[in-house]
Amino acid sequence: MGVLLNMKVAVIGAGSTVFGELFGRSYADLVLEAVKECLNSVDKGFELKEVEAIWLSTAIGTLIRREGCISCEVADTLRLYNLPITRVENACSSGGDAIRNAAFAVAAGIYDKVLVIGAEKMRDVPSRDTVIAFSGELRHQWWHPRGLTAPGWAALYAVAHMNQYGTKEEQFAEVAVKNHEYGSMNPKSQFKFKVTLEQVMNSPVVAWPIRLLHCCPVTDGAAAVILANPEIAKKYTDAPVYLVGTGLAVDSFYMGWRESYTYSPAMVSAAKQAYKMARIEPKDVDVAELHDCFSPVEIMLYEDLGFCPKGEGGKFIEEGLSRLGGKVPCNLSGGLKTKGHPIGATGVGQAYEIWKQLRGEAGKVQVNGAEIGLTCNWGGPGSIGVVNIYRRP
Amino acid sequence: MGVLLNMKVAVIGAGSTVFGELFGRSYADLVLEAVKECLNSVDKGFELKEVEAIWLSTAIGTLIRREGCISCEVADTLRLYNLPITRVENACSSGGDAIRNAAFAVAAGIYDKVLVIGAEKMRDVPSRDTVIAFSGELRHQWWHPRGLTAPGWAALYAVAHMNQYGTKEEQFAEVAVKNHEYGSMNPKSQFKFKVTLEQVMNSPVVAWPIRLLHCCPVTDGAAAVILANPEIAKKYTDAPVYLVGTGLAVDSFYMGWRESYTYSPAMVSAAKQAYKMARIEPKDVDVAELHDCFSPVEIMLYEDLGFCPKGEGGKFIEEGLSRLGGKVPCNLSGGLKTKGHPIGATGVGQAYEIWKQLRGEAGKVQVNGAEIGLTCNWGGPGSIGVVNIYRRP
Repeated sequence: MGVLLNMKVAVIGAGSTVFGELFGRSYADLVLEAVKECLNSVDKGFELKEVEAIWLSTAIGTLIRREGCISCEVADTLRLYNLPITRVENACSSGGDAIRNAAFAVAAGIYDKVLVIGAEKMRDVPSRDTVIAFSGELRHQWWHPRGLTAPGWAALYAVAHMNQYGTKEEQFAEVAVKNHEYGSMNPKSQFKFKVTLEQVMNSPVVAWPIRLLHCCPVTDGAAAVILANPEIAKKYTDAPVYLVGTGLAVDSFYMGWRESYTYSPAMVSAAKQAYKMARIEPKDVDVAELHDCFSPVEIMLYEDLGFCPKGEGGKFIEEGLSRLGGKVPCNLSGGLKTKGHPIGATGVGQAYEIWKQLRGEAGKVQVNGAEIGLTCNWGGPGSIGVVNIYRRP
Repeated sequence: MGVLLNMKVAVIGAGSTVFGELFGRSYADLVLEAVKECLNSVDKGFELKEVEAIWLSTAIGTLIRREGCISCEVADTLRLYNLPITRVENACSSGGDAIRNAAFAVAAGIYDKVLVIGAEKMRDVPSRDTVIAFSGELRHQWWHPRGLTAPGWAALYAVAHMNQYGTKEEQFAEVAVKNHEYGSMNPKSQFKFKVTLEQVMNSPVVAWPIRLLHCCPVTDGAAAVILANPEIAKKYTDAPVYLVGTGLAVDSFYMGWRESYTYSPAMVSAAKQAYKMARIEPKDVDVAELHDCFSPVEIMLYEDLGFCPKGEGGKFIEEGLSRLGGKVPCNLSGGLKTKGHPIGATGVGQAYEIWKQLRGEAGKVQVNGAEIGLTCNWGGPGSIGVVNIYRRP
């Protein structure tokens, strides 16, 4: 492996649209709104024209199945021409990976100030036509026409976890209750209502034990962050946040080749890379944004990220250890479950949430004294993992 | 801009499938074949397991309109699990941009040895269903249903160049004659036959002045290169090639906003960035692979890259200055015209050709003593430009 174990790239600004069913706003509208809020968030001011390069995370095109050349659409939206714009696609892990690639370019000294945009417009087609619905088919997997769509993947994991570790349906439900509670306080959330344990437990079964209230919604949204060379960052803010570790791993898409459905080897590998680069251990993480596309996944992520021993994720939520005031508060934004999951924007939106936490600007859900924050994205059926670690000085 | 003007990343291996109508080989077959040749090309041996991270350039999915999660397909193909794999998409500039992103990660010291793969499977659908056919529609441009597809874009440029600079149809045709001549000697070419000036001039008009024999074909193919830290590279080869400059620029997709159709501002910007980083001037380039998707584009590229003054591209080809033995021999591989244009693979395939040239392994088309080589990709209707510059010690 490479020699650089002390990567330090500053995050000097972050912004996000509200996530939700945004029928009145186009892909371009969302990009512009997120970028504007991001520019305005820079403490000492930052002009769009100072941007030297852009990374774009859009997983599924500006409209479903309308792919390619999206970098040009961003140039047109921002009226920012003849700069480098790279689109990164890595399924649901696209956002975290776009930040990773942008950070490498800054760490290499190629650019001083770059913009990362995550944007996805998913609601303009019916749910049955979304990428979620046909992602198995896309990869020509035999399982898709037999009904094994995304909730089914999550169900396989959930059942395996229940069988192997005695994890209970109530524990899965508790994740949804927690995330709805926090999401209800987030002005950027798609859902701003709370749910009770009974409501989750009585919600319709989608693919047992996955119920409707375990599932994240289909969402429109965009988010943006500005990364900068740490020295240059001083010109823009006295309260920078640093990206200090990043990891990405890709496993087989084919679920039949997994040795176990109780964890994601890709996520474990990505976390290991990120912790190593950041020179920290899981116990050092003060706050995390996790990829709870389905509530049981959050429980597995506690384990895959090392927040608790393998098999004890159910206990971790039950004992409130992932709540505000707990060992590692997770998804204080509401997570994918409540905030929403605009695929390409999700990872960048997580960075926006952690940036606020590490600057002490998270309001009612602020983790006191948070110094180290983590974000992660699961891609495919646990096939891709990306982990980014941020810290304040 | 950033401080690093002396990026130096070694290229220690390169491989490519033959380009063409490869109905008998899948996307995975092509990836595997290119990677195998690439690994075998490393002078002192290189094992697949030594790869630390992968960048993948695939522009249009594994089959047309079947997008997303392609990184997993590469993991499955190579049986290389839980490593980082990032897909980069930037239309026809994807290949050059994937190399650019991989190089940044190596330059940052994150990885010592990374693999860049470009792969595209385009022939499994009829031409009318290819991305070339619907790329205007994809971007919701009004012009597409009115017939302004890719050859029409090139025709607008060609006519403007003829009007403004007196460039002649014979000069466009001469580009095709040259590239067919060189391509006929390239074992990797889709077309291995020569054409005469008369044949080109008498070939059917697609969109005047663009004729059939000015158009690159639709192609299947894959290519791969290994990038390495320059110090580490010494372990693998005594004849490394270095990537010393890279540039990317994105303009509007909308042709109505161009001030002129005689050049690509994106390409001019990308070239400027790459020359600056490489600390060279256009006159230093010994050999180049250009993006001749349509023959008149090659003439504009001579100018946009600074090989000749603006407006003198026609004279440049007429006087043989882009031929072997000329001022800057261009497309000695046959170029997109003859070698073929598997979109995501094209830029990586160009790197493969330049790598051979700079190592003195280009056989009948070897440029004697070539030290500096350049590749470039045009994306969209001249909307994206990427330029990479390589040199040997």
